[in-house]
Amino acid sequence: MKSRRLVTVLFALACLGLGYARAAVRAPNIVLIVSDDQGYPDLGIIGTKPILTPHLDRLAREGVRATNFYATWPACTPSRGSILTGRYPQRNGLYDNVRNDLVSYKHRYTAEEYALSPEMTLGLDPKEITIGNVLQSAGYRTGVVGKWDMGQAKRFLPLQRGFDFFYGHGNNGIDYYTHERYGIHSMFRGNVRTQADVGTYATELFKREALRFVDDNRRQPFFLYLAFNAPHFASNFEGGVQAPEAFVRRYPDMDPKERLTSYYAAVTCMDEAIGELLARLDQHGLAQDTLVLFLSDNGGSGNGGNHPLRGAKMTMWEGGLRVPFLARWPNRLPAGVVTNEFLTALEIFPSLVAAAGATPPENVVLDGFDLLPVLGGRKKSPRTEMFWERRGERAARVDNWKWISSPKDSSLFDLAKDIGETSDLTSSHPEIAARLADRFAAWKKLMDATEPRGPFRDY
Amino acid sequence: MKSRRLVTVLFALACLGLGYARAAVRAPNIVLIVSDDQGYPDLGIIGTKPILTPHLDRLAREGVRATNFYATWPACTPSRGSILTGRYPQRNGLYDNVRNDLVSYKHRYTAEEYALSPEMTLGLDPKEITIGNVLQSAGYRTGVVGKWDMGQAKRFLPLQRGFDFFYGHGNNGIDYYTHERYGIHSMFRGNVRTQADVGTYATELFKREALRFVDDNRRQPFFLYLAFNAPHFASNFEGGVQAPEAFVRRYPDMDPKERLTSYYAAVTCMDEAIGELLARLDQHGLAQDTLVLFLSDNGGSGNGGNHPLRGAKMTMWEGGLRVPFLARWPNRLPAGVVTNEFLTALEIFPSLVAAAGATPPENVVLDGFDLLPVLGGRKKSPRTEMFWERRGERAARVDNWKWISSPKDSSLFDLAKDIGETSDLTSSHPEIAARLADRFAAWKKLMDATEPRGPFRDY
Repeated sequence: MKSRRLVTVLFALACLGLGYARAAVRAPNIVLIVSDDQGYPDLGIIGTKPILTPHLDRLAREGVRATNFYATWPACTPSRGSILTGRYPQRNGLYDNVRNDLVSYKHRYTAEEYALSPEMTLGLDPKEITIGNVLQSAGYRTGVVGKWDMGQAKRFLPLQRGFDFFYGHGNNGIDYYTHERYGIHSMFRGNVRTQADVGTYATELFKREALRFVDDNRRQPFFLYLAFNAPHFASNFEGGVQAPEAFVRRYPDMDPKERLTSYYAAVTCMDEAIGELLARLDQHGLAQDTLVLFLSDNGGSGNGGNHPLRGAKMTMWEGGLRVPFLARWPNRLPAGVVTNEFLTALEIFPSLVAAAGATPPENVVLDGFDLLPVLGGRKKSPRTEMFWERRGERAARVDNWKWISSPKDSSLFDLAKDIGETSDLTSSHPEIAARLADRFAAWKKLMDATEPRGPFRDY
Repeated sequence: MKSRRLVTVLFALACLGLGYARAAVRAPNIVLIVSDDQGYPDLGIIGTKPILTPHLDRLAREGVRATNFYATWPACTPSRGSILTGRYPQRNGLYDNVRNDLVSYKHRYTAEEYALSPEMTLGLDPKEITIGNVLQSAGYRTGVVGKWDMGQAKRFLPLQRGFDFFYGHGNNGIDYYTHERYGIHSMFRGNVRTQADVGTYATELFKREALRFVDDNRRQPFFLYLAFNAPHFASNFEGGVQAPEAFVRRYPDMDPKERLTSYYAAVTCMDEAIGELLARLDQHGLAQDTLVLFLSDNGGSGNGGNHPLRGAKMTMWEGGLRVPFLARWPNRLPAGVVTNEFLTALEIFPSLVAAAGATPPENVVLDGFDLLPVLGGRKKSPRTEMFWERRGERAARVDNWKWISSPKDSSLFDLAKDIGETSDLTSSHPEIAARLADRFAAWKKLMDATEPRGPFRDY
């Protein structure tokens, strides 16, 4: 109650002091949409691929599209952990995937084996504060629909992490229809696994639940974290992406048996779900009062390539790290703008806190900043640096320079001239390569010195 | 300092009030020796096998041997967790092995894979209080030599869990010579892995370090937890037990290439290390002031069988759960006594607390009791029940009745007449089977209601 009162007071003050229009009296709703392995160029509006995303294109036309936006890790779990905590994976301690594929993808677990497996026993450190915690404290109704991927023991699940509602899969990935992986079913409602929806395509289920969440909470500020498993390949490990026939048929010129066709179809099906969600916001008269963000969790895994970027998911090339990003907030952001400002997923947490007029958590180092003034064109991005680390691979971006290093070699690129990372400039600019290596080392020292948390930190 | 003063005061009081001889003025040293997979009948003094354990036999002659003594789990980690915490595995949350073999024993990890593996990320919940914590607080110098098996991230290692000294392997099992498993080296000194001793047989190393610990701490009360990896099969998974040639030659009538020969030889090598430790206690004049306990962590894994017991490690038969147990404390226990009292490893923690005159941890439920008066013949064992659970398999012992149940079937045995569990009495005594099933259910309810802890509990 205390926090809801605070929100009321804050917005009363905002009204009186800042003269916002009536629409801003209520704290804005927030819809944060995250897709899974959708490549940087895989939006129709970008125009390099024949992919159909009319609703995301609409979002881009009605808001801001960022072209210089990065995930914090080139695969799922740590990237999503940063979105949820506002912290580098190396700071929150969840700097690798929570899954069981260390030894063999093919193994089918017994229930007893699975209960002891990393997917059940590991997760985001319960001490970490999520954006759900912060917005819930600020009086929001908070919901997670879709891929959670922060651990599946009860202590790790959304209802214990600042969310009022959860429908989705707890683990890193599922088969779109059976909702299984490694032979284990992983669709939850709240804290309990449910088999009620077995056989229905996951995107349809997430659409249904997202609409339900919006309907149920339309009269109060709400935060919906809508994390699709699409267009990730089906995590039954038996093939590529799964997509409903109806969406495959939207690509009549493509071979329906080709993997790329089902990938495109999975994106289009997700896009249609997003379209229905946008329509529902319109129907409830909420579009003006709702900040909608969209991004992918990491680079594309190779479906049709990530051109003009080099590399894909799991690499330190731009193709692994740079992701599509859209933001729409009719009252606060311009429409149809494309920005090339240097931004990352670390900015999402502080931005949502700012948008909600909420209070950031005390004694927690956040690694980003409020990006709304940057998207609004009122401010240059204060970000000049970003760092990545994955299983011994390291990367740094400082201004437009990009440095990548592995145990075997290192390279240097000038992204201003060479977004495709084709020309290694290490030998012509050794001093810059050395500076970036130094910056990486300084960052790494900072991460190592942070309060130790998370399952993967050796503390 | 405070706690050391307390010890002094307590023992001054003991002196004044209870009239103990001079030898009891100082808190007793404690040496707790645990062997690995040594079967119930695998002591020379038992006489059923031609196995050479002269020093353990001496320990039995100079102390008490228990024949009705149980581990809390039929394999390593949870059994050792109970010894260290005094709590059922299902209560402290560590109720399965911490290892990486869920999928494949054969996999060799890269350093990066291993850093993310269960062996590194799981361990005894740091909130659990170990016997090291309690004795350290009581002014003891505390040391672990050998197999730790409670997790290998720094937060799980002995120096963070109430021990002043650690030399040994952090994980569940190693190759006796390379000290590797899954291709990863696992010998630690303190918090740091050391390769200084690669190539030397583990038992020799543990002997060296145990003697060093006793030498270094002989002038103050010390607690040494000496946990051999012998005679476990070599955890390189390439063969059976490894044993030095010199000990294999002690069995001239046996085929040196036979697995059983190297098993016997590994036991005898361990026995010789124990003999040297006992001799060192004698040399320092400490034998009278030292409580020495010896037990195996679970039943034998099948080397020559566990006759007269049925089954082996990993089963709920007596052969998986009943273990050899010896205790020597010249001032307080009789010599050469064999007791058939019903006792378990849950009794070790309270017994050591009592022997040390220490204070048990507050607000922690301990599942056992001080067994010293029982071993001393001054009291009957208060234990009438014991329960076990492992991956869906359940067992209960109530008085002399033993009930075993798996998803497929259940059996009932009268251990007073049938220690070999050959005659299932379920149909002739259905009411007793039902009573034991009820007792198990009541115990299980209690475990489920305990404060949730540990990596394996879904809380």
